[in-house]
Amino acid sequence: MSSPTPDYEALAATNRRLHRLEHLQSIAWWDQAAFMPPKGSEARAAALAELATLLHGLRTDPARQEQLDRAGQEPLDETQRANLREIRRELDLATALPASLVEARQIAGSRCEHAWRRQRPANDWKGFAANLREVVRLAREEAELLSQRLGVPRYDALMQRFEPGMSNAEVERVFGDLQTWLPDLVARVREKQASETVLVPQGPFDVAAQRALCERVMGLLGFDFEAGRLDVSTHPFTGGVPEDVRMTTRYRADEFLGSLMGTIHETGHGRYEQNLPREWLDQPVALARSMAIHESQSLSFEMQLGRHPGFIGFITPWLVETFGPQPALEAGNLQRLVTRVEPGFIRVDADELTYPAHVLLRWRIERALMEGEIEVDDIPALWDEQMRDLLGLDTRGNYRDGPMQDVHWTDGAFGYFPCYTLGAMYAAQWFATIRREHPQLDEEIARGELAPVFDWLRERIWLQGSRWTTAELTQRASGSALDPAHFRRHLEGRYLG
Amino acid sequence: MSSPTPDYEALAATNRRLHRLEHLQSIAWWDQAAFMPPKGSEARAAALAELATLLHGLRTDPARQEQLDRAGQEPLDETQRANLREIRRELDLATALPASLVEARQIAGSRCEHAWRRQRPANDWKGFAANLREVVRLAREEAELLSQRLGVPRYDALMQRFEPGMSNAEVERVFGDLQTWLPDLVARVREKQASETVLVPQGPFDVAAQRALCERVMGLLGFDFEAGRLDVSTHPFTGGVPEDVRMTTRYRADEFLGSLMGTIHETGHGRYEQNLPREWLDQPVALARSMAIHESQSLSFEMQLGRHPGFIGFITPWLVETFGPQPALEAGNLQRLVTRVEPGFIRVDADELTYPAHVLLRWRIERALMEGEIEVDDIPALWDEQMRDLLGLDTRGNYRDGPMQDVHWTDGAFGYFPCYTLGAMYAAQWFATIRREHPQLDEEIARGELAPVFDWLRERIWLQGSRWTTAELTQRASGSALDPAHFRRHLEGRYLG
Repeated sequence: MSSPTPDYEALAATNRRLHRLEHLQSIAWWDQAAFMPPKGSEARAAALAELATLLHGLRTDPARQEQLDRAGQEPLDETQRANLREIRRELDLATALPASLVEARQIAGSRCEHAWRRQRPANDWKGFAANLREVVRLAREEAELLSQRLGVPRYDALMQRFEPGMSNAEVERVFGDLQTWLPDLVARVREKQASETVLVPQGPFDVAAQRALCERVMGLLGFDFEAGRLDVSTHPFTGGVPEDVRMTTRYRADEFLGSLMGTIHETGHGRYEQNLPREWLDQPVALARSMAIHESQSLSFEMQLGRHPGFIGFITPWLVETFGPQPALEAGNLQRLVTRVEPGFIRVDADELTYPAHVLLRWRIERALMEGEIEVDDIPALWDEQMRDLLGLDTRGNYRDGPMQDVHWTDGAFGYFPCYTLGAMYAAQWFATIRREHPQLDEEIARGELAPVFDWLRERIWLQGSRWTTAELTQRASGSALDPAHFRRHLEGRYLG
Repeated sequence: MSSPTPDYEALAATNRRLHRLEHLQSIAWWDQAAFMPPKGSEARAAALAELATLLHGLRTDPARQEQLDRAGQEPLDETQRANLREIRRELDLATALPASLVEARQIAGSRCEHAWRRQRPANDWKGFAANLREVVRLAREEAELLSQRLGVPRYDALMQRFEPGMSNAEVERVFGDLQTWLPDLVARVREKQASETVLVPQGPFDVAAQRALCERVMGLLGFDFEAGRLDVSTHPFTGGVPEDVRMTTRYRADEFLGSLMGTIHETGHGRYEQNLPREWLDQPVALARSMAIHESQSLSFEMQLGRHPGFIGFITPWLVETFGPQPALEAGNLQRLVTRVEPGFIRVDADELTYPAHVLLRWRIERALMEGEIEVDDIPALWDEQMRDLLGLDTRGNYRDGPMQDVHWTDGAFGYFPCYTLGAMYAAQWFATIRREHPQLDEEIARGELAPVFDWLRERIWLQGSRWTTAELTQRASGSALDPAHFRRHLEGRYLG
């Protein structure tokens, strides 16, 4: 070998193979959610398990650790060094857990989720808690092993799976700030909105027409239909591969805003994926930076743009064209509708302003749970206490709309919840920066001229992939570290302005 | 190991892995044809090539040859022995060619097909022949190596890729018979039909309505929609996996019979796949027997059933319900329409009676080409001579509708053409047998009672998978060897009766 970087190249070659095989995995996942008929599920599960085993073997081949150690001494350029950092990160996560724990965790997670499907309607907290205790026990074991490997506290270690480089201290800094002003802001906005009249659009809304509308809005948002599709699935998501992004939504005949706003949200994820740096696309350095940064894109689209009065005004005529005129399809009313604040039990149904309250609550509880400060049995009382403090809601005895409302915990995905609100904060920070650099931004948005937004995001976020740590990316993109003041100003401006 | 069959089990375990990974390959192929947007093609090709390399490596692992030799001495039951035979067959085909030849063949084939896309409209035989010569040269090399490995003549060796156990002598026996009566039968039918009036249904035909009709007919034909789908692609095919069959068709607004009959054809392939023996599904012994047997299923559906006057009569009211009444949508007229005989240049557009003439011609030419008896430059004259003899058509100078009309030869798939007409002959033999065992069959078909047909096919063909050689399967299913007299009687009965 005459190459001066043989070990780096060996690592990169394996990543190339992984990237190509993961392509087939992604398409099979998408198909499973969007198209697969029921009797295909058993064979599909076996096929995906076989591929997962194969990928795990390639990824954790002991030779890679040695290659990694030697490649660190090779003359690499900046991007290669960043790639090496990402490879090391993936390898640490992939090799920190014994196979027996990975398997036990999967079994416990799937048992907990499976039982949850009937326990939730039955409000059966006792039954659910029994399964969740095992999930928590294994997650703590995982947290301990990851903590040892990564040299960070246990909850921080779990967060690394979703949000590399994020520490709980940093979450505490920004969420602590949030907690000081959010409940009061919600109260003030509720008071202001109490006297507003809001009309709800009356259906039915033809599903084919909704689909055409969603695709039209995706076009306005710059989605490349030559490199992706929009289909239907029960739980909307963005999957596929960067070269071929598969988005899904779902339609209801009696309501179109959920599907439209959901599509706008997923389009943010989709454009991020479609615009990752092509020249490194088969290497980890070209992947999206983190879950919070991903969410900052979907929320840039759904919240910053999609609920912007100028944007709503611009697409209102399209809604009227699509569904015919009715009083509710007037720009002012639509704007009030999509910014209506209403504390509720369910996170995924929450509005822009109360959503962070749900995240604060989940983060407080799951962190304490992972650090061993509380046990599963303590959750309901803490839940009720936080819901009262944050949103003024009484949740006693209502487990199904409380800790049993979603599957993050059943699956052991502790450490994920903060990403949602970190994403909302990053999005506010991106838009504050764009607005600073483009003082005419709001007028441009009102004219449907969104290029300044997309150019900025492409240059500062999308094309950067994983070249920088999230902290470096944030600094380079916006000139400062993550600052919750942007989020506060955005919410106050939109909801009290 | 306490197992008495460790080597058989090692082979079976590898086949299980192959089966699971091939599942992902099949779904990716289906997606590529039916859904993939254009910019996804490069990444998809790389992903599929990576998987193909991986599968080839697993399949041709030298340890398998040793396992195969030792497994032959193990105490296996009849199905395991059959499975071993199929594994050996696959291994022989997979290891007979050096990687360099496989690659050269792929490059030459794809160059020839790529250039053909513009050469065909330009009627550029000279340009096409230049590329085809290289394809032929490599195919002869392949034929020679396969011939040495399998101990059969060169053209026979190429046929083994599609039709295991078939010899050219056997094809000569049945096609030689066919050639003695086909041209005369075509002439007599043409004479009989000369005075018939046939009305062509007038469109437009709503595509959504066509799709609903196709799915309704698939339901009548027993397709399990819980274990498969119907979608759209440019070139209709049946793909996916036995547990989840993915069929495609294509719709034209001005014509619905092509799509309907194509769907009926593919449903035959689909039901075969859906009903392969489940208990062996991850082993070669559970795969469809051969291409001709597969085609015997699609032609049982499309020709034996789909053009049966009782079947046409049964579905005619559905057509009227779907598209509204018009004179052409009368059962007698539809029957005349789908059995209209019209010699033409293009094989895929040919009717039931003239189709075998196209196959005879292709088989004569490709066999001589592979055995080195003729060269590429000899094809046009031979083509013209055969077309005159068989169908009375003059093809001089018309290369685009002659040897350039399809892609079998550009891809080097020499040895495939006989399967089409062998399939038609097997289908006629199956129906002669079913009719013998169910004397009321034609009345049942006219009432839409198709269970006798499906029960017979399921029991005698589908559930047999590859347990028997094709000759054994034929004998067990119908009580005799392949006999072209059934095909002749079927055609004479339908077209002159």
